[in-house]
Amino acid sequence: MTLLYKSSAERGQRWAALLAEWAPEIAFRQWPDIGDPLLVEYLVAWQPPDNLMQQFPNLRVLFSVGAGADQFDYHRLPPELPVVRMIEPGLTQGMVEYITWSVLGLHRGMPRYLQQQRQQCWLEQPTKPASQCRVGVMGVGELGEAVLQPLVQFGYDCAGWSRTPKHLPGVRSFAGEEQLASFLARSDILICLLPLTRATENILNASLFSQLPQGAALVHAGRGGHLNSADLLAALESQQLSAAVIDVTDPEPLPEGHPFWLHPAIWLTPHIASQTRPETAVRALLDNIRRFERGEAMQGVVDRSRGY
Amino acid sequence: MTLLYKSSAERGQRWAALLAEWAPEIAFRQWPDIGDPLLVEYLVAWQPPDNLMQQFPNLRVLFSVGAGADQFDYHRLPPELPVVRMIEPGLTQGMVEYITWSVLGLHRGMPRYLQQQRQQCWLEQPTKPASQCRVGVMGVGELGEAVLQPLVQFGYDCAGWSRTPKHLPGVRSFAGEEQLASFLARSDILICLLPLTRATENILNASLFSQLPQGAALVHAGRGGHLNSADLLAALESQQLSAAVIDVTDPEPLPEGHPFWLHPAIWLTPHIASQTRPETAVRALLDNIRRFERGEAMQGVVDRSRGY
Repeated sequence: MTLLYKSSAERGQRWAALLAEWAPEIAFRQWPDIGDPLLVEYLVAWQPPDNLMQQFPNLRVLFSVGAGADQFDYHRLPPELPVVRMIEPGLTQGMVEYITWSVLGLHRGMPRYLQQQRQQCWLEQPTKPASQCRVGVMGVGELGEAVLQPLVQFGYDCAGWSRTPKHLPGVRSFAGEEQLASFLARSDILICLLPLTRATENILNASLFSQLPQGAALVHAGRGGHLNSADLLAALESQQLSAAVIDVTDPEPLPEGHPFWLHPAIWLTPHIASQTRPETAVRALLDNIRRFERGEAMQGVVDRSRGY
Repeated sequence: MTLLYKSSAERGQRWAALLAEWAPEIAFRQWPDIGDPLLVEYLVAWQPPDNLMQQFPNLRVLFSVGAGADQFDYHRLPPELPVVRMIEPGLTQGMVEYITWSVLGLHRGMPRYLQQQRQQCWLEQPTKPASQCRVGVMGVGELGEAVLQPLVQFGYDCAGWSRTPKHLPGVRSFAGEEQLASFLARSDILICLLPLTRATENILNASLFSQLPQGAALVHAGRGGHLNSADLLAALESQQLSAAVIDVTDPEPLPEGHPFWLHPAIWLTPHIASQTRPETAVRALLDNIRRFERGEAMQGVVDRSRGY
């Protein structure tokens, strides 16, 4: 069987080495060196090539290299082709680190302190104990559940918002459209980890921001398409929001001259919150391929009706 | 009995309210409204007044409002006067938050990413898993031990350096002058939480920096007197160090024009890593006063022979 990899060339070399060691029975090909297209059964990609099934008529599974699979155009994929998101501990740990860093920094006023530094201003700002800082996580899947654990341990007053109620220790659960307003009203720091679907597109907009407590902060590590940039800028301008940490934009890379680059209350990172780690990702992929070959259910198969 | 408070006036009002509620038998006075100086038995201060014992001949204990007591000039304090450092959970939690934020940010290259942002540069940097990031804490007292806990949980490869060996789960212990070099050689992120004594003054200097792995980062939340500023700037210039998070300076506030203010690889905060919280600090103080009145040992009494 042949596995075709189409993503970062540098990481691809690491994948090749690991697969050669752990699964020598799999022929590994890295795009654009596809070999005989008829042999390709598995494709690992961020963006699949055009005319996927014409090019690779024997393709059996499409694996996303990332935690999301919203980048695929499902109208152009055959309905019976399984599409699988990446669920692997390296990706999760990266997100936990990024979100914990963001929440601690926003809670302790670090964007303000770093602005003060450049103004040569030595001034202590009032701070609240973590127990009085209300953190709300939108999207309580693999990643959301994992990031909530250290936040609960640091003593933050935590809540999660999801499609269906989730029961996690120390986390208040809000579910569905009808509980969104109550969830937002108690989120001093709002974290977006939602999947991007038709229902969540543009969800971070003026109406949502206006329902947060005044001076709230945003951490956005979902997808660029969740966020209305103009509405975020207006909310920061009016001081409805005090600061934002943004890891995803639409488009990526963010175009030159976009107001996020130089905004003093925005910390922008280039989609690095959570990066697939070859070692753990290859193990997760091999586990899924073995499950599939045995006819068992794979981890992370996209349910196209809900979009993730 | 009278308790005299001499520190931030704003926080003093909160202390007054809490003491009135929890210990109405104690007469609370806030500097400079000292009342009858002969009645003052307890002084809570960052800096005591001059001629302390002449002014307050019946003073029985000097309490520091902070975790350190290095700001006192011991030559001017009677040798039998107990001097007590502040040990209280609010102070500890603040330090845990600050250090965790700093380590996560340095591990994940955030100083670089925020510089890239201002240059409108969208560029992913290579990153290592936490397990390959070696963190070293200098000073493993109340605070050092507390900050190591979440760092171990995040999976960092942790070590501590202290006067005497300490046995903490998941933390490699190095002790004394003779193990300092081995400790430094394995510290990708070095955290200074030492007490300031004659032995530790100016310890963060060119010789120490040269023993760290190339490209190491510094988190300094000890005291300004530990750090040789010129040596830090030279180490950043030569790229022996990659970044520094600095919360304490000498003097404080940092003077205008000091190179730390505008240095792109330095994040500077105005001595806010750990702030005494009135609620928890007043409880700790009352507990110590009650111990003292019963003739029991107080928590945090300074051993003048070792200087902390």
